[in-house]
Amino acid sequence: MLAARLYRYDPAMQEELRLETVPDPTIRQPDEVIVRIVGAGLCRTDLHIIEGVWRPILDPEGKLLPYTLGHENTGIVEAVGSAVRNVRVGDRVICHPQATCGLCLGCRVGEDMYCTSARFPGLDSDGGFAQYLVTTERALVKVPEDVDLVDIAPLADAGLTAYRAAKRASRIAPPDGWVVIIGIGGLGHIALQVLRALAGVRIVAVDRSPLARERAGELGADHVLAGSPDLAAEIRELTGGGAHVVLDFVGEQGVEQQSWQMLRKGGTHLIIGYGGTLEIPTVRMIFGELTVAGSLVGNYKELVELIDLVARGKVRVFTQRYTLQEINRAIDDFKHGRYFGRAVITP
Amino acid sequence: MLAARLYRYDPAMQEELRLETVPDPTIRQPDEVIVRIVGAGLCRTDLHIIEGVWRPILDPEGKLLPYTLGHENTGIVEAVGSAVRNVRVGDRVICHPQATCGLCLGCRVGEDMYCTSARFPGLDSDGGFAQYLVTTERALVKVPEDVDLVDIAPLADAGLTAYRAAKRASRIAPPDGWVVIIGIGGLGHIALQVLRALAGVRIVAVDRSPLARERAGELGADHVLAGSPDLAAEIRELTGGGAHVVLDFVGEQGVEQQSWQMLRKGGTHLIIGYGGTLEIPTVRMIFGELTVAGSLVGNYKELVELIDLVARGKVRVFTQRYTLQEINRAIDDFKHGRYFGRAVITP
Amino acid sequence: MLAARLYRYDPAMQEELRLETVPDPTIRQPDEVIVRIVGAGLCRTDLHIIEGVWRPILDPEGKLLPYTLGHENTGIVEAVGSAVRNVRVGDRVICHPQATCGLCLGCRVGEDMYCTSARFPGLDSDGGFAQYLVTTERALVKVPEDVDLVDIAPLADAGLTAYRAAKRASRIAPPDGWVVIIGIGGLGHIALQVLRALAGVRIVAVDRSPLARERAGELGADHVLAGSPDLAAEIRELTGGGAHVVLDFVGEQGVEQQSWQMLRKGGTHLIIGYGGTLEIPTVRMIFGELTVAGSLVGNYKELVELIDLVARGKVRVFTQRYTLQEINRAIDDFKHGRYFGRAVITP
Amino acid sequence: MLAARLYRYDPAMQEELRLETVPDPTIRQPDEVIVRIVGAGLCRTDLHIIEGVWRPILDPEGKLLPYTLGHENTGIVEAVGSAVRNVRVGDRVICHPQATCGLCLGCRVGEDMYCTSARFPGLDSDGGFAQYLVTTERALVKVPEDVDLVDIAPLADAGLTAYRAAKRASRIAPPDGWVVIIGIGGLGHIALQVLRALAGVRIVAVDRSPLARERAGELGADHVLAGSPDLAAEIRELTGGGAHVVLDFVGEQGVEQQSWQMLRKGGTHLIIGYGGTLEIPTVRMIFGELTVAGSLVGNYKELVELIDLVARGKVRVFTQRYTLQEINRAIDDFKHGRYFGRAVITP
Repeated sequence: MLAARLYRYDPAMQEELRLETVPDPTIRQPDEVIVRIVGAGLCRTDLHIIEGVWRPILDPEGKLLPYTLGHENTGIVEAVGSAVRNVRVGDRVICHPQATCGLCLGCRVGEDMYCTSARFPGLDSDGGFAQYLVTTERALVKVPEDVDLVDIAPLADAGLTAYRAAKRASRIAPPDGWVVIIGIGGLGHIALQVLRALAGVRIVAVDRSPLARERAGELGADHVLAGSPDLAAEIRELTGGGAHVVLDFVGEQGVEQQSWQMLRKGGTHLIIGYGGTLEIPTVRMIFGELTVAGSLVGNYKELVELIDLVARGKVRVFTQRYTLQEINRAIDDFKHGRYFGRAVITP
Repeated sequence: MLAARLYRYDPAMQEELRLETVPDPTIRQPDEVIVRIVGAGLCRTDLHIIEGVWRPILDPEGKLLPYTLGHENTGIVEAVGSAVRNVRVGDRVICHPQATCGLCLGCRVGEDMYCTSARFPGLDSDGGFAQYLVTTERALVKVPEDVDLVDIAPLADAGLTAYRAAKRASRIAPPDGWVVIIGIGGLGHIALQVLRALAGVRIVAVDRSPLARERAGELGADHVLAGSPDLAAEIRELTGGGAHVVLDFVGEQGVEQQSWQMLRKGGTHLIIGYGGTLEIPTVRMIFGELTVAGSLVGNYKELVELIDLVARGKVRVFTQRYTLQEINRAIDDFKHGRYFGRAVITP
Repeated sequence: MLAARLYRYDPAMQEELRLETVPDPTIRQPDEVIVRIVGAGLCRTDLHIIEGVWRPILDPEGKLLPYTLGHENTGIVEAVGSAVRNVRVGDRVICHPQATCGLCLGCRVGEDMYCTSARFPGLDSDGGFAQYLVTTERALVKVPEDVDLVDIAPLADAGLTAYRAAKRASRIAPPDGWVVIIGIGGLGHIALQVLRALAGVRIVAVDRSPLARERAGELGADHVLAGSPDLAAEIRELTGGGAHVVLDFVGEQGVEQQSWQMLRKGGTHLIIGYGGTLEIPTVRMIFGELTVAGSLVGNYKELVELIDLVARGKVRVFTQRYTLQEINRAIDDFKHGRYFGRAVITP
Repeated sequence: MLAARLYRYDPAMQEELRLETVPDPTIRQPDEVIVRIVGAGLCRTDLHIIEGVWRPILDPEGKLLPYTLGHENTGIVEAVGSAVRNVRVGDRVICHPQATCGLCLGCRVGEDMYCTSARFPGLDSDGGFAQYLVTTERALVKVPEDVDLVDIAPLADAGLTAYRAAKRASRIAPPDGWVVIIGIGGLGHIALQVLRALAGVRIVAVDRSPLARERAGELGADHVLAGSPDLAAEIRELTGGGAHVVLDFVGEQGVEQQSWQMLRKGGTHLIIGYGGTLEIPTVRMIFGELTVAGSLVGNYKELVELIDLVARGKVRVFTQRYTLQEINRAIDDFKHGRYFGRAVITP
């Protein structure tokens, strides 16, 4: 089969993925499933992997390369292992990014990302920028016939991450509360729609890009701001004392510091973007009774819920399609911000 | 009446409170109550006020001095305003530190510390290092006959702060979870007992003082540690992956940084002590899905619950008594760590 | 002033309210407020009072009559007591139905309906079918200029009751869950809109009236059913196993029995309507791990949230207006189901 | 191997289990595990099965008999299937009563009892009144060396059911709240200890048996009552208005009706025992804002937590031991209430 593989980490990001023919994958464990890829989302994490940012975590011994990237995958079940009961050949599926054990306590309480022995195709083993992918039965959520498999590929990871954070915000903020979403890109535009669907809160969307702000307005933000050095003060003014929840999809470049400073007493800063460092005097945490919390990729049940929202027309994904042959152009367009939403590779 | 009053801020902490005779207070509003003080706890905040740390917040225009400190008060109702319905002359009471409005949204949802127009006797107006105190009906919790009013004075603020944090920990950590309490002093030794009463968790107590560690063992800690530069690693080892909750009663001197580093995935760092500054890379918040949260003084209902635990013998306060005339000696003993638990002034 | 007063209980409901001139009310307590009535909703409870259903509870000694009904009131502040701080003459307000003490533990945790010494104007004392009403400061929520005071009068009680139940449902059901609302009348049509605003759930609306079903569809129900003896089986079929939550606004005529039988495992039956009797084998409760729960009128904060939803266009009330002189005609129209939604009296 | 098998349903309960030699079980699926039984608890459900009460549910087609009862099992892993990763031969284990699929949504959110394709050894297939039992890897919780496997066998089902309900009560009742436990038998005496360990509440234990009441006092009940026709009134008096939570381990003989009548406003009646029928006017549910809820056997994580409490000495089980040969005598003693706590069969 054809696959786009990484051969060399390159901090300068000049390295391209190599399109090459590799052996078709085969079933090796009774719970494995081979998925014929229909859509594979391109994620900022893919860029970070190419740059070598993840090398110390994913590839400490330098044995991972070459391998196939791509961790936001949808497709059709092509083959199943002997013990597989939940899906059949021909089923339309989206792949939860982690293939989990199902036995550790993390799995037993439903938190797939807490699995202590999961595999993460596209990060620590061959992923979906290829014609076929091997994962396990536990990773697969069935997709209704009328949902486009290409469009939803980015929901497997980016959308699921946005969903978990937005759902959490919907449970924290009161119905008359204010939620600020900073960064209306690939994750943020999903979070905005999820929050609109799950809560009655007032939503303030913040993004530097005029196009992102325009989309935010269309998708239901009550207020749209461009961001500024005075953003925290601006939000405190607009909200009459501060936000109840801030969804921080940037997490760097000073946004991580602005975010908690725009909270009202008892407010919560949810961190999804990363790169920067929080610096908060403990006295500020106490007097404001603030909560600052990181948020991971969602779990299996949350992916089921998200696909259901999509199937009911409550969430749509803005995508730009590229063939597998065009993957390096997709990466280049991503780096230069030439599309809104997410790129999806279609093998 | 006799009162111990502050006349001058002194960063060097050489300034003593002046014992002087002032006019007896009178009822000026229909909801006011005069309490004859039986016990008034001495708190680190009193030292900070004397040092001038709180001056920018409490006394920005320099008009507050001289005034009477003391914000952890118990006593007997001496007189009541015309509209008072909840207490009567002769009632034994403990005073919630804030005299709240009862009308703002903070008050309406039961969070007294969120009141937007509260008075805080002993901080922003005359407090309880005196024979009488003026507060309002809303601040008063009745105390059963068999509970000693001197012993429980520190519960009004220190104990209530410890209670709120420990109760929150009891709701976050699973019954087989690990909770670390750092700092087994005036607040921490209450938190330890509250947690023991409200949860089945494993408790690890950490303190540099051998006496505090001994008390921690007696009060039910499962493990007692002295603290060290490697405390975070030590805790991760002991707990098989990290604590579920850390109650940080220090909040400075590096403890604020050790605390979140000893959490397991999904863990929570509750901050009650202050002085230091958190510095956390956002990527650590996300990969660990950590929560860091400040905790304030408890609300009225929480004070009711705490007094109830004391009345049932589940929480005791370690106190050292001083007469009002001895208050400056009490302050000196506090500064030099000459007692365990809390000092209480008995007018 | 003019008032519509009840002089005699009449199980046959032939008794009309007497329109008569009574003395204008005056302020007697420092926290009292006189409201000039703009709208006063007519509620089924008013009919029950006239019939004498409430007599054993409200008037056991037969000393209540004659008095003025009307417990869903909006208006303009006409006069305030000496201690009132939260509202001023001229303010536009909606009245929470209970004038609460603010001091009991129910009040202290924000649950106004748990107040142990509240007054309920229109039930246990003179209400709002008159030109003026006396209540207290604690009952008043300010209403924005652009919200019509007549339209929202029914939110004071009926709407607030619907809100509390719908909000609770929104917190129980997962985003891909099913919520059934039975009875799309004065309360149900509010609950439907609230649930639509606060949750992403699938909503099934059930009502015998074709007009109510039509409205339900317009207001966003995903499925609309007429109800039948087989309703429980129908719902289990439609929902693939049963509803996650049923909001039962009927509570009698067999609906109270159908409701819990249409739940899936772990489901919740919220009861708002009344009159019937639940009969549930305990074995059914256990095997289905069912929850059956009553729901009261909402609290003050919930009324604030509801008015906010109205101000933002997320909830509208269907009303039919009558002048105070027309009140007996309004009652007659109500008895015969001649309007959809709620009647509002405009003095 | 030797097994105690049921050959005939007998409403008169004269039928004895037949002790006979059957073939040793073998591994047939890759996730199966054979456990050498060390302890097998005798449960009231076993009696109900013999009586034929469960026949319509478990054996509608009459094909189940003969089979081996026993669904509260502990033992040593004797053999494992090819895919088993979590346990090894020789491990000491307690068996969650259900062998679940791990793939359905119930399993994916951690609720084992919601599994849509589970097997329940001892109910729908051969159980643990034998030398060996076949279950699956997902059912097994490891037991620390110093915990006696015979003593804890009843925790697998009875204890786990009590645990789930008591834990839920600990999360509902405030720390100064009142919890009533009715029925201090095999389940109730576990619930009492769990509640004591997990919450600061006041506990009222109710049982007709003097021995049970004595045990209740020893295990930490604050008040012990014998029960009476006036129990509800008695509890309302004792608790100053009613219980916050009632744990009803009887669920029949009128207790199911007394239970909700002893609740305070906002209270919760948790039903664990069964047999009777609730009859509650909907108006009572609403005015009291009552919650009535069934509670099932706990999930896997809850079993882990319970074993951990036992290992730390916070919960002990009162057991009476019988050999497998003595099983019919054990059943007879159970029927006649000749022991306190639970009988355990030791093959």
